[in-house]
Amino acid sequence: MQSVSESAVSVFGPQGIANAQLVRRKIRQGAWASHTSGLASDHVQGNVVILPEAQANDFLRYCQRNPKPCPVLAVSEPGQAMLPSLGDDIDICSDLPRYRVWNDGVVVDEPTDITALWRKDLVTFVLGCSFSFEHALLEAGLPLRHIAQGKNVAMYRTHIATQPAGLFHGPMVVSMRPMKAAAAIRAVQVTSRFPNVHGAPVHLGNPALIGIADLGAPDYGDAVDIMDDEIPVFWACGVTPQAALAQARPAFCITHAPGAMLITDLLNQQLASF
Amino acid sequence: MQSVSESAVSVFGPQGIANAQLVRRKIRQGAWASHTSGLASDHVQGNVVILPEAQANDFLRYCQRNPKPCPVLAVSEPGQAMLPSLGDDIDICSDLPRYRVWNDGVVVDEPTDITALWRKDLVTFVLGCSFSFEHALLEAGLPLRHIAQGKNVAMYRTHIATQPAGLFHGPMVVSMRPMKAAAAIRAVQVTSRFPNVHGAPVHLGNPALIGIADLGAPDYGDAVDIMDDEIPVFWACGVTPQAALAQARPAFCITHAPGAMLITDLLNQQLASF
Repeated sequence: MQSVSESAVSVFGPQGIANAQLVRRKIRQGAWASHTSGLASDHVQGNVVILPEAQANDFLRYCQRNPKPCPVLAVSEPGQAMLPSLGDDIDICSDLPRYRVWNDGVVVDEPTDITALWRKDLVTFVLGCSFSFEHALLEAGLPLRHIAQGKNVAMYRTHIATQPAGLFHGPMVVSMRPMKAAAAIRAVQVTSRFPNVHGAPVHLGNPALIGIADLGAPDYGDAVDIMDDEIPVFWACGVTPQAALAQARPAFCITHAPGAMLITDLLNQQLASF
Repeated sequence: MQSVSESAVSVFGPQGIANAQLVRRKIRQGAWASHTSGLASDHVQGNVVILPEAQANDFLRYCQRNPKPCPVLAVSEPGQAMLPSLGDDIDICSDLPRYRVWNDGVVVDEPTDITALWRKDLVTFVLGCSFSFEHALLEAGLPLRHIAQGKNVAMYRTHIATQPAGLFHGPMVVSMRPMKAAAAIRAVQVTSRFPNVHGAPVHLGNPALIGIADLGAPDYGDAVDIMDDEIPVFWACGVTPQAALAQARPAFCITHAPGAMLITDLLNQQLASF
């Protein structure tokens, strides 16, 4: 449903662009190193966090305590690069378009393959991403302003604290989509079916009530227009665990590069809870 | 869940008050002629409209076209006083606490039994009522201001037109319950499961967008306090068909008296759609 660039069509072909396995194979071959929005859009995409086992245990507890911003789709065995529960032949070392390598909370490299960095103690987390629920909203006929305006979604730090675990803590980050009231009500219904990709909104209406001073100045992403007959609707956002990770400053960690998600074989509709 | 008066306890007994068939039998015997809020509260209660067959056909089309304010739970065969689909031995002529008899749109009598008025061409409609979804909201731990304040819910005429059918037309009437945002989101989830008793809200937030000038001046029921951190949430209301009926002014019709509903054997939970 999301818009797809001409360059993506030229790499994957007009049909191939919808095929998760083909897109992943091209990514593994190094033919695509950019964002994944609109690629294989019927399929679930995931945020990726790779941590040494010691911090991984803390991070899993952090996700368990904060399921709305940190919905875990899969956790690998330590040292195992394959993610069989998410699809056929998924190798986390090569199947993302681009990675970020972090030392002590600082990005030190943005490679397109991490095979050389793999270690026997690394654990991979794949977390649900809002692309899945946006796909469901668009299929339900609900327009999304940031997509119509060709922008990134607007994201804000709130004064809602996440539940800490070990190293990990910080404020909940939310994404905001302006909607007319009837669309907001429908959006609650649609996204409630998808608890594994952030689920129902966490807030709607007055942004000050969750500690947002100015909707025109998002902390991440782009500001979008809000019309007089619209209300802002806020969802827990996958930037929350990334922000917690940046604050925790583990000695070593790898994530996806922003927007360059893992494409799985799961269909978005498979995540629907009823 | 709703509060029950001491007089109700003395009539039905502390246990009997929860038993739909016992309560209905006492009503039939003339032992209770008042409102039914809090009686047999696990059970579905219904608004009642009784019309001659000619207008009944128009009214059924009106309900079909406006399912949110006019959710039909049962329609009788012409001339049949029994409603077997709603419970055991329900006789619509005697099993409401109090009726209203209308001639040309004017209330001419408020009897407690209509056996003497029954005719072979009369058709009974039973429409879902907000008691069922309020019960579900309270069970979900969501407080309701009007119940806490011992008031009737606030209701307003909107500028949303219903779809006309034959004689019947008019504005949608809505009920309003103020809630914090998180409770409003949860209330959308809870009431979405109950399409047969008005279902999800039709609006939330700015009342002017649906033609309500002043929340402090409801058209029916009582005004309630709205706190600074709350938004008004609006549901389609069963007063809508009553208002359409009053405007249509059929030569003859019978309804329940306000608040004196038909108590059925159905459990509220049986209406849940998932």
